[in-house]
Amino acid sequence: MKKQLSVIKIGGNVINSETELDSFLSDFAELQGLKILVHGGGKKATEIADSMGLEPKMIGGRRITDEANLEVVTMVYAGLLNKNIVAKLQAKDCNALGLSGADANVIEAHKRIVKEIDYGFAGDIDQVENKIISLFLNAGITPVFSAITHNKKGQLLNTNADTIAAEVANSLSVDFDVELIYCFEKNGVLKDVEDDESVIECINSKSYELLKSEGVINQGMLPKLENCFNSLQNGVGSVILGKPELIRDRNNKHTRLTL
Amino acid sequence: MKKQLSVIKIGGNVINSETELDSFLSDFAELQGLKILVHGGGKKATEIADSMGLEPKMIGGRRITDEANLEVVTMVYAGLLNKNIVAKLQAKDCNALGLSGADANVIEAHKRIVKEIDYGFAGDIDQVENKIISLFLNAGITPVFSAITHNKKGQLLNTNADTIAAEVANSLSVDFDVELIYCFEKNGVLKDVEDDESVIECINSKSYELLKSEGVINQGMLPKLENCFNSLQNGVGSVILGKPELIRDRNNKHTRLTL
Repeated sequence: MKKQLSVIKIGGNVINSETELDSFLSDFAELQGLKILVHGGGKKATEIADSMGLEPKMIGGRRITDEANLEVVTMVYAGLLNKNIVAKLQAKDCNALGLSGADANVIEAHKRIVKEIDYGFAGDIDQVENKIISLFLNAGITPVFSAITHNKKGQLLNTNADTIAAEVANSLSVDFDVELIYCFEKNGVLKDVEDDESVIECINSKSYELLKSEGVINQGMLPKLENCFNSLQNGVGSVILGKPELIRDRNNKHTRLTL
Repeated sequence: MKKQLSVIKIGGNVINSETELDSFLSDFAELQGLKILVHGGGKKATEIADSMGLEPKMIGGRRITDEANLEVVTMVYAGLLNKNIVAKLQAKDCNALGLSGADANVIEAHKRIVKEIDYGFAGDIDQVENKIISLFLNAGITPVFSAITHNKKGQLLNTNADTIAAEVANSLSVDFDVELIYCFEKNGVLKDVEDDESVIECINSKSYELLKSEGVINQGMLPKLENCFNSLQNGVGSVILGKPELIRDRNNKHTRLTL
């Protein structure tokens, strides 16, 4: 039987508040079994870029990673945030190891192909080195991924943290029974986006098609859920979406996706 | 018989020049056998701090790490520099893994005790987790240490890279036959500081005492050499001082210290 592994992603909503981050990290440290944390960026990168006098580069509402901004996200995501999260987990007796995709070549990516928009130094993932991540896990180490990868040719790349969580979960499902958990600011997938209590508790691929055809699932949620079902088809056992508190208390409302 | 391990430290003189860094990393990647890289900071941290409008804090000519400067060195050393070095080594097929002391708790330190000067968030090393570093090395991974450690209570600490190299070398000498190499801007220990050709090729503890009593070794070099002999007494096989080129070509002038 495969060992259980939880891959948990947190975003800016947790990282931006010192109290919330600390509370989440306590819960994460206490979580039993093998686990991996993936964290996004939050407002700190914007603050640092501002204080350095850098203008954010946007095209069509999308953020572009130019060279100066790549330096900032590398510093902030893989340096400041990652090392502070790791140090805090260590204080809570969780043997965390901070990683960018370059470290031990755990995530190889390529610079996003330019179609309509040149996203600059944005990375699309090619492969996850599951053998070395398994080695870390089996040695009692908890990997903590920042949203930076590389192209194995010396170039670091800014990479979507949701995608990192999904690709790491997919890749490790060969060796582990993986549960992928996305912590965000809602209680889960909602019937009514205005009502955080209207959580749809279970969605499988069949009911998902129905919810889509009925227009219940809102447009913003669609790409996220498509990725989740993609992970399920790639071997991930279940995907859970909800507030960070759910990792402490599974009675906290959340949505569970299965095939 | 113990396996050979090289612990190599580079400082700002290598890091500040992209050409020199790239040339050094090529040599380092090609170096046979087990190896560890320790890197210092260089001028990038000062540049970033300047661009953020931070004033360097100095007391009696010594740099003080206040909270804002700790953020900058964490970002620059453990983020920007470390991840770029790791990505460049990966491109050269060296399976590098970037580490701060917090990662997998590899280096535990304490905030320097305040005597005459309060150095702020400066770390003095308490212990190196040689078991986990050995695990990495035996898995074909090359650890790359930045000059950031932690106190296991959630606090990151700015830590002297020379000391990290020495402490890592000392600790690993239990399991490996360790050679500690300090790359700096001179050809080694010089008889005449003005003459880079006047290298003293071999120094042992006996000739060291003689050189000291004769006043041949200049004051700036004394604390560095004291630390080197301390490492030798702690089990490190030999300590080498010289220019970065020596790791490619041992015919390059250098000083070798032995007991």
